[in-house]
Amino acid sequence: MKIGVVGAGPAGLAAIRHSLEFGCEVVAFEQNESIGGTWIYTDNIETNKYGLEEHSSMYQGLMTNLPKEAMSYPDFPYPPSDKSYLTSPEVLEYFSYFANHFDLVKHIKFQSHVVRISPLLNNQFEFIVRDLQTEKNVKHVFDAVLVCAGFSVPMVPTFPDSDKFKGEIIHSHLYRSPKKYENKIILIIGGGPSGVDIAFAVSKTAKKVFWSHHMDETWGRKVKLEVPSNLSEKVDVAKFTESGAIFQDGTVEEFAVVIFATGYDYKFPFISIDCGLSCYKKYIQPLYKHCISINRPNLAIIGVPYFALAMPLFDLQIRFCLTFMTGKKQLPSREEMLKDTEKDMKERWTRLKPHKGHALGMDKHEAYYAEIARTAGIEPLKPVLGKMFNRSFTQFTSDFNNFRKEVYEVVDDENFSVS
Amino acid sequence: MKIGVVGAGPAGLAAIRHSLEFGCEVVAFEQNESIGGTWIYTDNIETNKYGLEEHSSMYQGLMTNLPKEAMSYPDFPYPPSDKSYLTSPEVLEYFSYFANHFDLVKHIKFQSHVVRISPLLNNQFEFIVRDLQTEKNVKHVFDAVLVCAGFSVPMVPTFPDSDKFKGEIIHSHLYRSPKKYENKIILIIGGGPSGVDIAFAVSKTAKKVFWSHHMDETWGRKVKLEVPSNLSEKVDVAKFTESGAIFQDGTVEEFAVVIFATGYDYKFPFISIDCGLSCYKKYIQPLYKHCISINRPNLAIIGVPYFALAMPLFDLQIRFCLTFMTGKKQLPSREEMLKDTEKDMKERWTRLKPHKGHALGMDKHEAYYAEIARTAGIEPLKPVLGKMFNRSFTQFTSDFNNFRKEVYEVVDDENFSVS
Repeated sequence: MKIGVVGAGPAGLAAIRHSLEFGCEVVAFEQNESIGGTWIYTDNIETNKYGLEEHSSMYQGLMTNLPKEAMSYPDFPYPPSDKSYLTSPEVLEYFSYFANHFDLVKHIKFQSHVVRISPLLNNQFEFIVRDLQTEKNVKHVFDAVLVCAGFSVPMVPTFPDSDKFKGEIIHSHLYRSPKKYENKIILIIGGGPSGVDIAFAVSKTAKKVFWSHHMDETWGRKVKLEVPSNLSEKVDVAKFTESGAIFQDGTVEEFAVVIFATGYDYKFPFISIDCGLSCYKKYIQPLYKHCISINRPNLAIIGVPYFALAMPLFDLQIRFCLTFMTGKKQLPSREEMLKDTEKDMKERWTRLKPHKGHALGMDKHEAYYAEIARTAGIEPLKPVLGKMFNRSFTQFTSDFNNFRKEVYEVVDDENFSVS
Repeated sequence: MKIGVVGAGPAGLAAIRHSLEFGCEVVAFEQNESIGGTWIYTDNIETNKYGLEEHSSMYQGLMTNLPKEAMSYPDFPYPPSDKSYLTSPEVLEYFSYFANHFDLVKHIKFQSHVVRISPLLNNQFEFIVRDLQTEKNVKHVFDAVLVCAGFSVPMVPTFPDSDKFKGEIIHSHLYRSPKKYENKIILIIGGGPSGVDIAFAVSKTAKKVFWSHHMDETWGRKVKLEVPSNLSEKVDVAKFTESGAIFQDGTVEEFAVVIFATGYDYKFPFISIDCGLSCYKKYIQPLYKHCISINRPNLAIIGVPYFALAMPLFDLQIRFCLTFMTGKKQLPSREEMLKDTEKDMKERWTRLKPHKGHALGMDKHEAYYAEIARTAGIEPLKPVLGKMFNRSFTQFTSDFNNFRKEVYEVVDDENFSVS
């Protein structure tokens, strides 16, 4: 069986490794010149030298939101060190170490941009891949597909009169360092991890920072952060003016720059509708267990659920998919998978906003890991991983200035200690 | 407003014409070197000189199933002649005449293969188009898209042991002339227009023809044709053998060739799932009135409904779409469009097989034309068109050997005469 993988970032590397361990041939296509995906830092924004949109959202000084103990592939820990929260170069180094250990690089075609994936009559998949060096389109055929391309399309909410604002508007996707914002007055919108990070980083040197968020809703719990003195928390923008905004509580503020830290949407321009999927407002359907295309079960998208563990989840989903793709276990019927998904989503839509179709978060992520391991009959994630995630996110929203100083240690499959 | 059109066949030509008349800029991309789409005859089968799948299913001696009086664009009749049923070169000539009359060719980029259509953040659409001469990918951006690419993927039902059969198996898509089948014993499967045509054509020179069909179901009415003496009608194949098949009534026959005249599926490899559509088993969803993408209303697929008028329907759908795309009229809300589609489909699924989501046919096509004209407030099709369709299809299934000798004349908007 021949597996085609899109991307050689954190998910793509695990996909190559497990495809080989399941006895498959595998080729991964990566548009960059090296592995690591979103963990590669670049000063570049907008389009790269090949005219492709810059994929990385990495910013200077970014440190992980989770301890390294919860960020490794399940059976491949980070090298020991005296800290848990790492810089992005340290994370990138881990991926090199992983790729070398399993000898993965020879299965990767670099500078290869996947333009289109569509099914053939015999149910194989045709890839049209653009070789960025020769500028030629090359066709490849695979029996199954693991899409490990991440997602990095800025979500930008619309506000009345935003076109009237004469200052600068950027999305956190293009934020690289606080330097640009020294001595300026800035509005930051959004209370997720990037919003918190950027609000605190920018306020160190900015003249004044307004921060509009509803963190309680974003994080699903009461949040109270100790904020710097030059940072004012704000409610939602009611409408923009030429030089600032009027907020929903009637207050009026002036600022020079708006940074939208409003998260990301999925973008899969290369997947054809003939694969039986559609993607609309951060919801991809129909996906069985948030990864397998129900209409074309030999195609899966890895890493769709968010507010969850990353590498452990990717690893688990990949083993889940390969178990079915290689015929080690049979999937339920199409009707059963549709019913299962419908039931799951019905429950979600009653509680969640429309664009949160694939969100997990503290109250749901552990059940998801257990569910997909049970469904495929594969090695589950150790409970300690989910517990560390919960601890770290709780600290993030209650003690932002100090949580990254904590050092985690895994005691056993269930327990960890913090010092 | 800039409209991108995929294809310069019968629908694409009407799309260019009406885009211009709605005051839009328009560019159409056509992979062939000339206009006409499926009406271009080629001896070639399988892939063409550019390695692309051959698009045309046209066969030698094909004559239209409908009188020319029902096959023209609504306001652009065929030149007068003493017959109603035409050969394919005559139809192709009509399209040249139409294209010249409206000066359409300068808006067409030939030898241009649309590889991918995906939405941009600003809701415009990016086309990646392969220039087949230079082999370069070129990007274009449009405000709206009319997909006029037809559909020509063979549908082949699966039968037990079909892999054991040692003779030749082809789909009618690749059937070109009866010559190959002289003095042979042939099995033809399928009772739609191509099945009937090919069964009668092949039986003139074949040694023996078996014809497995359920025309009553296909046509939605009792059908009894007078068949040639060397043609035996059969029930469904139960399973294949090395040299023939066992049928569901227990009879056993031997034959050298199987021709599947089992129709076509949709194939839109170039439409990205980011357009908010999915295509599975001959059903594209969610489409408002079987053409407008509900999640991206500035993208529409023309000509999805079948067992219906062709050119008049394309013309009507294009005017329908452009009325909304250009803002002449507002579409209902997304929720209303989804509800409308759901209601329509619910009614259809209760009566139709799963792969007939977009079938019209004699009992439904006229209501569809009226409905979309009313919805957009545009000039409806003249009722005489639907009536001629019904007459012609009734004759097709009751007097196959003679129906193409009839000559139609339009008397007024409601009535026609036949001689």
